[in-house]
Amino acid sequence: MTEKETIACLASHSALNILKGAKDEGFKTLAICKKGTTNFYKSFGVADEIIEVEAFSDIFDIQSELEDSIVVPHGSFVAYLGIDRYLNEFHVPTFGNKEILKWESDRNLKSKLLKESGIKIPMEFEKPEDIDRPVIVKFHGAEGGRGYFIARNSDEFYRKSRAKDDLIQELIIGTTMYPSFFYSVVRDRLEFFCVDRRYESDVDSAIKFDQDPTFTVVGNFPIVPRESLAIKMYDLGEGFVSATKKFVDPGISGPFCLELCVDRDTNMYSFEFSGRIVAGTNCYIPYSQYSYVMWGEPMSMGRRIAREVKEARIDGMLDDITS
Amino acid sequence: MTEKETIACLASHSALNILKGAKDEGFKTLAICKKGTTNFYKSFGVADEIIEVEAFSDIFDIQSELEDSIVVPHGSFVAYLGIDRYLNEFHVPTFGNKEILKWESDRNLKSKLLKESGIKIPMEFEKPEDIDRPVIVKFHGAEGGRGYFIARNSDEFYRKSRAKDDLIQELIIGTTMYPSFFYSVVRDRLEFFCVDRRYESDVDSAIKFDQDPTFTVVGNFPIVPRESLAIKMYDLGEGFVSATKKFVDPGISGPFCLELCVDRDTNMYSFEFSGRIVAGTNCYIPYSQYSYVMWGEPMSMGRRIAREVKEARIDGMLDDITS
Amino acid sequence: MTEKETIACLASHSALNILKGAKDEGFKTLAICKKGTTNFYKSFGVADEIIEVEAFSDIFDIQSELEDSIVVPHGSFVAYLGIDRYLNEFHVPTFGNKEILKWESDRNLKSKLLKESGIKIPMEFEKPEDIDRPVIVKFHGAEGGRGYFIARNSDEFYRKSRAKDDLIQELIIGTTMYPSFFYSVVRDRLEFFCVDRRYESDVDSAIKFDQDPTFTVVGNFPIVPRESLAIKMYDLGEGFVSATKKFVDPGISGPFCLELCVDRDTNMYSFEFSGRIVAGTNCYIPYSQYSYVMWGEPMSMGRRIAREVKEARIDGMLDDITS
Repeated sequence: MTEKETIACLASHSALNILKGAKDEGFKTLAICKKGTTNFYKSFGVADEIIEVEAFSDIFDIQSELEDSIVVPHGSFVAYLGIDRYLNEFHVPTFGNKEILKWESDRNLKSKLLKESGIKIPMEFEKPEDIDRPVIVKFHGAEGGRGYFIARNSDEFYRKSRAKDDLIQELIIGTTMYPSFFYSVVRDRLEFFCVDRRYESDVDSAIKFDQDPTFTVVGNFPIVPRESLAIKMYDLGEGFVSATKKFVDPGISGPFCLELCVDRDTNMYSFEFSGRIVAGTNCYIPYSQYSYVMWGEPMSMGRRIAREVKEARIDGMLDDITS
Repeated sequence: MTEKETIACLASHSALNILKGAKDEGFKTLAICKKGTTNFYKSFGVADEIIEVEAFSDIFDIQSELEDSIVVPHGSFVAYLGIDRYLNEFHVPTFGNKEILKWESDRNLKSKLLKESGIKIPMEFEKPEDIDRPVIVKFHGAEGGRGYFIARNSDEFYRKSRAKDDLIQELIIGTTMYPSFFYSVVRDRLEFFCVDRRYESDVDSAIKFDQDPTFTVVGNFPIVPRESLAIKMYDLGEGFVSATKKFVDPGISGPFCLELCVDRDTNMYSFEFSGRIVAGTNCYIPYSQYSYVMWGEPMSMGRRIAREVKEARIDGMLDDITS
Repeated sequence: MTEKETIACLASHSALNILKGAKDEGFKTLAICKKGTTNFYKSFGVADEIIEVEAFSDIFDIQSELEDSIVVPHGSFVAYLGIDRYLNEFHVPTFGNKEILKWESDRNLKSKLLKESGIKIPMEFEKPEDIDRPVIVKFHGAEGGRGYFIARNSDEFYRKSRAKDDLIQELIIGTTMYPSFFYSVVRDRLEFFCVDRRYESDVDSAIKFDQDPTFTVVGNFPIVPRESLAIKMYDLGEGFVSATKKFVDPGISGPFCLELCVDRDTNMYSFEFSGRIVAGTNCYIPYSQYSYVMWGEPMSMGRRIAREVKEARIDGMLDDITS
């Protein structure tokens, strides 16, 4: 790969984080903005160049303009591009191992990888008749925090359900915590980065009403786990890295997040992972508690990514940290 | 206006924020402390001078001692001085456009300004008979988070209500987020600053009891909205700035906050605004995520205010940013 | 005492905070790690030396290896060592006044000290028959957030209770806030440091179920109180310092925390205190809002402790800040 001078991303999700981090590490920055959002990004002065598009999927048509760039994928990236088109039709180098995003996007692959990581996942029920504890049911195609309901037994399931291919999952009663990690290929080490909790409408509304809750993510809170739980989370992170080395050759590279629920006995269950930067890391600009302890300087996840690119460039390892 | 060397404020609300910010920008600082609170402020070493008063409204009698000062108004300022006395009897230059505080203090003016800003506000019902959805009812003269109740229909309203001039407002079920902005007259630009969520007793109590909730603000949490929602909030902020330019000549100057509720479809409703620094910005000393991205140095709202004064002084614009 | 060059602690609770703070102040650092946790601590690079033990109580057997150290006690320290063995068999100098930890560990001494501090504590009921309001009942030996239940009257008490020596305490409905302070013996002053709120499973679960709640602490949130409440908290802190000077000779030294509940009238009740660093301060690495206002440089609680040791060493006061 030629010497890349620019870090680029879609202007959404964690773009401010990524762009500012890149500038702090001395990169040129490029933001691909949807029409109508340019003012917002311009006001921060972190994008050296802005390309305005009608829709994010237009990125396929402007690949030639990204020749000098490494693109950092985030949560909106796959959502807008589609995993298949991204894997097959996008040829600009992206940061990290793009294969992991296929595993993130597929319910069965996701479960397989979590199990291999040694992480507890909520029990799944094949048939409504098997329900023997409170469950959370996800309508087929549920998206953006909608299309869930809770049932205590099969009767309640049938009163509320719409389809047979709903996912019926044990309801874990507990508190959610989302630890973010950075696996550095250049330094060959796993870094514990930060923890957040999602803020969801309307399940986190101060006033509750008697309707099935929605889990539309509207923001993120910073949170610091008990140190003994942070250690457990780090173990889960190490298990995850090993599992990706086995299944997703050559393994995870860069940021990832385990979405955990901690029950009253501090058992941890994961119902999801993200194989890339998550929006929760936006709480931690310019620092997280953990990144300060490790680095002693401002180090957001966006900057950590840029630092990895910089160190890889110096070591001739750019091909190892992009795909 | 003569060269002002001192930034002053009432020692409450966001005084530590304002005073530390002023010191960081090289100003002298003056705190007007209520008897009994001096120890607290002294311990931080951020007030070069302290004037002790029996009551904050004594500030009217010590105006001659503030000749060298610009006073920064905050939430406690208008609450203790009274909007009319403030506008008519207080002659020390205050930061920002003081007219906006009249609009903030008046229920009808407030709604008018929000509507002109293009911001959705909860529907109001003139008569209890019109109630066709859950509502929140505010007793006339309700203050400090007390005097609210929730009703699902007119029957429940009559069971709970005490007076005919209660405000009956559509209850928006959703999560609250309070974005703070800074409109810089000197730089002629709108800055997205930070977002907080209020912590309210006892509606945020972990243990709920069957009484009508109170919303007494006891603190603020930091929170980071989804970036796509931050962009929407910025648009609302721009609408608000335009509306103030039309109605509150010459328009807003300095910090303001939109109190928003986000529903399950990510619609945003505003039920209030603050035309000055809010206590939620206290979460963000010395940084917010957004102020770091924009400035790359410690920049709290208190410091942002002082920076504006400093830049205005250099540009001969002090009269434009005070009133 | 000889010149101590090293700050040591058990690798748990707030160890990253303490170790990083010590390094920032130029100390050597030593972490006593339980087997299996070494990787986590090594990854941060803040422990110059690591001693691996099977169980934390092994620290009694390695005291000779700590000759050059001052040990910083934290919440896990007393929990694992036991207060009696710690006071009688541990001879390495520990930071602060270790006697206070005896008062923290004993229900009656704790109440006595809080009362002497002028702090409201929830009313206690001797007999279930006396219950005239909602109460929270703590089983004898309740630990780690388990073994509580709520009762509205004596009937409900008897339906749920298991033993006669349960603690029956008035239930304060309100929001919890945990202010941390630092009392500096070297500077002879009380510093308001930060405020957090615990994140507890499963009482803070987004989805509630009809079981008695547990209060297992899984993490901490940052929170900023209204400035007028911070002033009240500071007054409580001053009362607490005075009370310790009277009862726990020569008085508190270093960090402490008051666990408060704020009701709808902003009355504050304390149900507990901690006479040492609490995990809530981990939210505030490298800063809290208040520590930045006071110090204008990165100042976590861990660093504040190390700064005190450094200043004491310069002033020949090491004996005054250790025990």
